[in-house]
Amino acid sequence: MKFGLFGSAQAKRGGPDVDSGQGFKDYVDYNIEAEALGYAATFVVEHHFTGFGQVSASMNLLGWVAAKTSTIRVGTAVMVLPWHNPVLLAEQAATLDLLSGGRLEFGVGKGYRNNEFESFCIDPAEAEERFEESLALIMKAFTSNERFSHNGKYWKFKDIIVEPPPFQKPHPRMWMAAGSPKSIAQVAERGFNLMLDQFASTEVTLERFNLFKSEVEKRGRRFDPMSVGVCRAFYVARNVQEKEQAVENRLQATLRMADLAKSGRDNKSSMMTFAETKEASEESALYGSPDEIAAKVDRLRKAGVELILLNGPGGSREHLRRFGRDVMPAFAGLPPVLQAAQ
Amino acid sequence: MKFGLFGSAQAKRGGPDVDSGQGFKDYVDYNIEAEALGYAATFVVEHHFTGFGQVSASMNLLGWVAAKTSTIRVGTAVMVLPWHNPVLLAEQAATLDLLSGGRLEFGVGKGYRNNEFESFCIDPAEAEERFEESLALIMKAFTSNERFSHNGKYWKFKDIIVEPPPFQKPHPRMWMAAGSPKSIAQVAERGFNLMLDQFASTEVTLERFNLFKSEVEKRGRRFDPMSVGVCRAFYVARNVQEKEQAVENRLQATLRMADLAKSGRDNKSSMMTFAETKEASEESALYGSPDEIAAKVDRLRKAGVELILLNGPGGSREHLRRFGRDVMPAFAGLPPVLQAAQ
Repeated sequence: MKFGLFGSAQAKRGGPDVDSGQGFKDYVDYNIEAEALGYAATFVVEHHFTGFGQVSASMNLLGWVAAKTSTIRVGTAVMVLPWHNPVLLAEQAATLDLLSGGRLEFGVGKGYRNNEFESFCIDPAEAEERFEESLALIMKAFTSNERFSHNGKYWKFKDIIVEPPPFQKPHPRMWMAAGSPKSIAQVAERGFNLMLDQFASTEVTLERFNLFKSEVEKRGRRFDPMSVGVCRAFYVARNVQEKEQAVENRLQATLRMADLAKSGRDNKSSMMTFAETKEASEESALYGSPDEIAAKVDRLRKAGVELILLNGPGGSREHLRRFGRDVMPAFAGLPPVLQAAQ
Repeated sequence: MKFGLFGSAQAKRGGPDVDSGQGFKDYVDYNIEAEALGYAATFVVEHHFTGFGQVSASMNLLGWVAAKTSTIRVGTAVMVLPWHNPVLLAEQAATLDLLSGGRLEFGVGKGYRNNEFESFCIDPAEAEERFEESLALIMKAFTSNERFSHNGKYWKFKDIIVEPPPFQKPHPRMWMAAGSPKSIAQVAERGFNLMLDQFASTEVTLERFNLFKSEVEKRGRRFDPMSVGVCRAFYVARNVQEKEQAVENRLQATLRMADLAKSGRDNKSSMMTFAETKEASEESALYGSPDEIAAKVDRLRKAGVELILLNGPGGSREHLRRFGRDVMPAFAGLPPVLQAAQ
């Protein structure tokens, strides 16, 4: 089994006394230590105009992490294609992939926060179409050794060859998040890797995991368990009170995030269909003593899950260490390792 | 006096035997050594679809350089604004500035290669207007602590606050290349720093330097010699034959580049008005023995130039060392140092 991380970093805005870069530097240090502790990958979000300093230029931050580390894989979770010129995005991704020696895990998505669509002045109704056009163009940009033109609905390019080529051939490992049966089947159809969200219950998560496996096999391909990353929040608590408080905090944070995504829009993302109760929040999270957490991880492992992507409390190095030292060793060393295209 | 570098890197495309990342890694190592030798800054180009692997995602490459160094300033020469979503570009620049502790020198331009305009399907006639709209938006993105909207001809954003904020306040040091009197006056008017090209003769370069000085002072500001970077090619030759060959090679390379920029378009850029003769090519370049080069640098220094941006032969570490050891020490230590906003 392998454990990776997913999360964000925060650059606070403020007066002359505030070092806005501190949150980014902490994030880099967090990942340097994660590599040393044996975490195999780190995924970062992309968000814009939040007002609280979430990561926006995700691949620039990931580049810094990659430059300061040597083995940990760096991933986007996810780059929101409707915001980007697909060719410039492919250039950025390939540059990061080259410089890191093929350590890029390239997650892509359609966007789900209504206020981001509004701020970019992009109609959410176009998200699907924009995503498909951009993705097809990005894959061609990664793989074409010949010049080509693109005359799409949203983008036009003439006689281009996109440079540099990525390190991983034919392209960086691609990821998408999905939850509904239709979306999961589409990820299998594309031949991409699948991220399963941190909110769904263990039971629902395993149903989705098995559905993806069967969708892959249905297409005549061998299923690689490392092609599914199960996202889970974690909190290694020292006592029951600490755990209870953490569960409550998580529920509140989740409700706030759900509000942000839903505001003003009928958001149909499967990620937003989790039960908003304390019990559901606790069930889906790896919160508790090392033994409690290990029991939950073991249930996932026995069902075939081999890659768990963890989100820790507020970038706490202490929790990173607790999980790395008190939980991870019991599951390490089981084959296969995270497949790197190195 | 201070010496910086400007140049590019190359990611070759090829079969399984070609490590496309080698050129980028060499570029990073080149700059690590440059910092150790006392070079103060390094500027990289932005180009697209060249077919020979020039740098496209410039700030991603610069981020890697910055992560592997600690003092050398990292600059763009230049980011071509018409290709970019201005808000995403501001986010990238601010992220790099934050992570590097304020080492970004942010050069911007309008674009000059006709084939790039064609490939991006952007009318060169719009370049000026696109540049102005983007630049104004980028400056607002860097400096506004309040949400704002933008309803321009080319870009629309609603209720945005651009994150993260840059490290340097109020914004990263800004650079533009200019040659014509009108353009030089505009750079002074904007309060930006000026890059003078490597092709103009010493005499023309000093005229431009003095014009910029007077344009700055005319506006009631103190002229800072570090606000002008004079670009020069250099080649520290061990004998006359080596120098002659290098001068000839430079002339041929220059003519090829001029062709690339001019093809199919009446390019009025002042950068392209250099005399295309061997004598002119030699006069403008710092080619020759250390003593010959020192005499040329001294002429610039006596005229008030304090920052020279060097372009060395094919990323040669040997030439970087020769200049650093045999020429630079004679000019080092003269005030003022390159002003860093750290």
